Amino acid sequence: MELQRPRGTRDFLFEEMKERKNVENTMKRIFESYGYGEIKTPIFEELSLFTTKSGEGIKDQIYHFQDKSGRDLALRPELTAPVARMYIKELQKAPKPVKMYYFGSCFRYERPQAGRFRQFWQLGCELIGGKSPGSEAEVISMAAHCLDELGLENYEIHIGNLGILRNILIDAQILGDTQDQVMAAIDKGDAEELKNLLKSINTDEDSEELLLKLIDMKGDASILKDAEALINCSENACNALFELEKLLEALEAFGFSNYTVNLGIARGLDYYTGTVFEIYVHGLGAQKQISGGGTYNLIELFGGEKVESTGFAFGFDRVMEALKKQQTTIDKEEAVKVFVAPLNSDLSLTGYEIVQKLRKANIGAEVDLVGKKLKKILSYADTKQISYVVLLGSREFEEGKVTVKDMNTGEQESVNISEVESYFKTMLM
Amino acid sequence: MELQRPRGTRDFLFEEMKERKNVENTMKRIFESYGYGEIKTPIFEELSLFTTKSGEGIKDQIYHFQDKSGRDLALRPELTAPVARMYIKELQKAPKPVKMYYFGSCFRYERPQAGRFRQFWQLGCELIGGKSPGSEAEVISMAAHCLDELGLENYEIHIGNLGILRNILIDAQILGDTQDQVMAAIDKGDAEELKNLLKSINTDEDSEELLLKLIDMKGDASILKDAEALINCSENACNALFELEKLLEALEAFGFSNYTVNLGIARGLDYYTGTVFEIYVHGLGAQKQISGGGTYNLIELFGGEKVESTGFAFGFDRVMEALKKQQTTIDKEEAVKVFVAPLNSDLSLTGYEIVQKLRKANIGAEVDLVGKKLKKILSYADTKQISYVVLLGSREFEEGKVTVKDMNTGEQESVNISEVESYFKTMLM
Repeated sequence: MELQRPRGTRDFLFEEMKERKNVENTMKRIFESYGYGEIKTPIFEELSLFTTKSGEGIKDQIYHFQDKSGRDLALRPELTAPVARMYIKELQKAPKPVKMYYFGSCFRYERPQAGRFRQFWQLGCELIGGKSPGSEAEVISMAAHCLDELGLENYEIHIGNLGILRNILIDAQILGDTQDQVMAAIDKGDAEELKNLLKSINTDEDSEELLLKLIDMKGDASILKDAEALINCSENACNALFELEKLLEALEAFGFSNYTVNLGIARGLDYYTGTVFEIYVHGLGAQKQISGGGTYNLIELFGGEKVESTGFAFGFDRVMEALKKQQTTIDKEEAVKVFVAPLNSDLSLTGYEIVQKLRKANIGAEVDLVGKKLKKILSYADTKQISYVVLLGSREFEEGKVTVKDMNTGEQESVNISEVESYFKTMLM
Repeated sequence: MELQRPRGTRDFLFEEMKERKNVENTMKRIFESYGYGEIKTPIFEELSLFTTKSGEGIKDQIYHFQDKSGRDLALRPELTAPVARMYIKELQKAPKPVKMYYFGSCFRYERPQAGRFRQFWQLGCELIGGKSPGSEAEVISMAAHCLDELGLENYEIHIGNLGILRNILIDAQILGDTQDQVMAAIDKGDAEELKNLLKSINTDEDSEELLLKLIDMKGDASILKDAEALINCSENACNALFELEKLLEALEAFGFSNYTVNLGIARGLDYYTGTVFEIYVHGLGAQKQISGGGTYNLIELFGGEKVESTGFAFGFDRVMEALKKQQTTIDKEEAVKVFVAPLNSDLSLTGYEIVQKLRKANIGAEVDLVGKKLKKILSYADTKQISYVVLLGSREFEEGKVTVKDMNTGEQESVNISEVESYFKTMLM
């Protein structure tokens, strides 16, 4: 019999877990320092939560099943919808803005490939009920703060506003589903496909030219002036440009100016309303996008109040991948500092007493449990990067002493058994 | 349209999450100080992993489904089997003992009731390849250390050894499935049912009397002598008693003597071999058991090497419930210390600059993002237990100053804008 791990999933062993936890904790600490509080929702939800948000087509890409009572359930493919559901039930009356963050696994049934897994992790946030340039700028600054704190280099934050493209499409009488189709084609980034689509729906030539020019505009804040001149000036599209300008101003005040204005971001999802942003890291192949977000209107779609949210999520696995690719050093302190080695089975109980005193004094420590030979003990301590080994031999024990071996220098020191705890307190704290 | 959370699941909001994280982190810190490293396995596994361990009957109690390729998958109902699967593939060659711990959610399809949920959390560990009284004693001491550190009172750790009952059954020619049936009946704790079962399989009277006496024996280490006299002395059953004696001796050396020897623990699962223990907290109703574990032989059942593991898991939700019932204070430090309040929309950008400097200096801070009135700001800061509010008014701004209001004392102080960061560094660190 051979027991396999399911395709597209992973096991995480000690070292990788340490790195992941360190990154997770760093990001969480920063989210919390911005006033975000953590929440948690179930691993599975009613299937209708996700079809309401994303359409019936999503069923092809997710894990869904019936429970024993015939309820249609789905393993969550993302966390924005569950958070909106929770907000409606629990938090509509809380003082606004409500600032929440989450960290959890999501599931997609898709062909496993480099950087794409069937169980993957998202760390993200939602700011509900406080739409303003300041709110959006704070969210983007927080994303940048996380990446800076982790030491990730060469990331690019691209910022746009969907109101510009959508209002130009409205002016060209491209509405409803057709408009969403065009936005999806822009999101895909295939210029030929987009041109064909625009032709097939009889877009007028001026609008087509304007659209194709705009979606290629990328650069610093100065391109907003160029765009304004081009648009010439559909009132609503210009309002969206103005909104973007205000956002960039606020971003500068938050100390973040390393952005790229990108009018071609479309996000491909119907419920985004204005500001959108995406974060890319080069060198990750097809999976270069490590984060995406913006402002949207999902609460109302789910039957809640009319209120806008700004949010984003990091693809946590991709952030880990990017850090590894850039060989960023991730701090991994060893919890165990001392290994206690009774060199004779008669001394095991004394070894247990010593190790337990250290642990109760908040000093991580192990003790030999299986009667290993000294050589094996030293090699085990070495592998696990334990700093000190306490050698407990019969002759010394009779004198009430142990030998402490410093694994880094190789030096040995004789210490009274009654003073082992205070000795390590001094050495380690 | 009404979107519901699936039956038997929970959402966790801010305060509850803080408490849960605090308890989780405390336990993890202690596990790590004993040399355990965290690992993580997928949320779903092949269904056969769990039917191999627990029999086909388990299918009635768990969530299982086919994926789009017809694979039979199951949401994991527990973590021992996934950890054993992972060990076989990844860790058989690692230096022994291998010490791992895990924290994650598990799923059972059962009728939701007080203290029983369809998604629940387990925090547990496995020590693989180092069976000895010392190993078992260390694992039990670690469980007690966690509960002591959390401040949980009135917990009871009951310790037994399955070898005693199993060898008496063997001596009475009660073998195989029939033996497992008897052990399950003992585990259930229904004396009538057990008696009827023993009668129906024609157990000799002496053995029946001996069994019924033994399973009622509970107390301190001295009951082992009474048991020895009773058994009179089937060699194997006495070996198991001797094993238990050694374990208690090691436990005392680890500084834990608050145990109850309980010869009636049966655990009801076939793969336990010797030492078993359970932890109870009174006042939790039917769900008084918060942890269970012991030594077992699962790796070989899954096609791996012949090696014994000692492990246990805390029912994390029950530990939380027990702490709440005992009104244990769980520390919940607020991450945000300062709220920056521009009192005039012209000063928003200055507010953003101030708040961001604080955050970059590792001081948790929020800024008003939506133009709240002062009264609302103070009430928000009060609700979120924020210690200081920075009032940024036009007149003071012209003089390069802000007013810092201490929310605990109500006192106000004028501070130079350029010195806000160093002011709070002094106040908070």
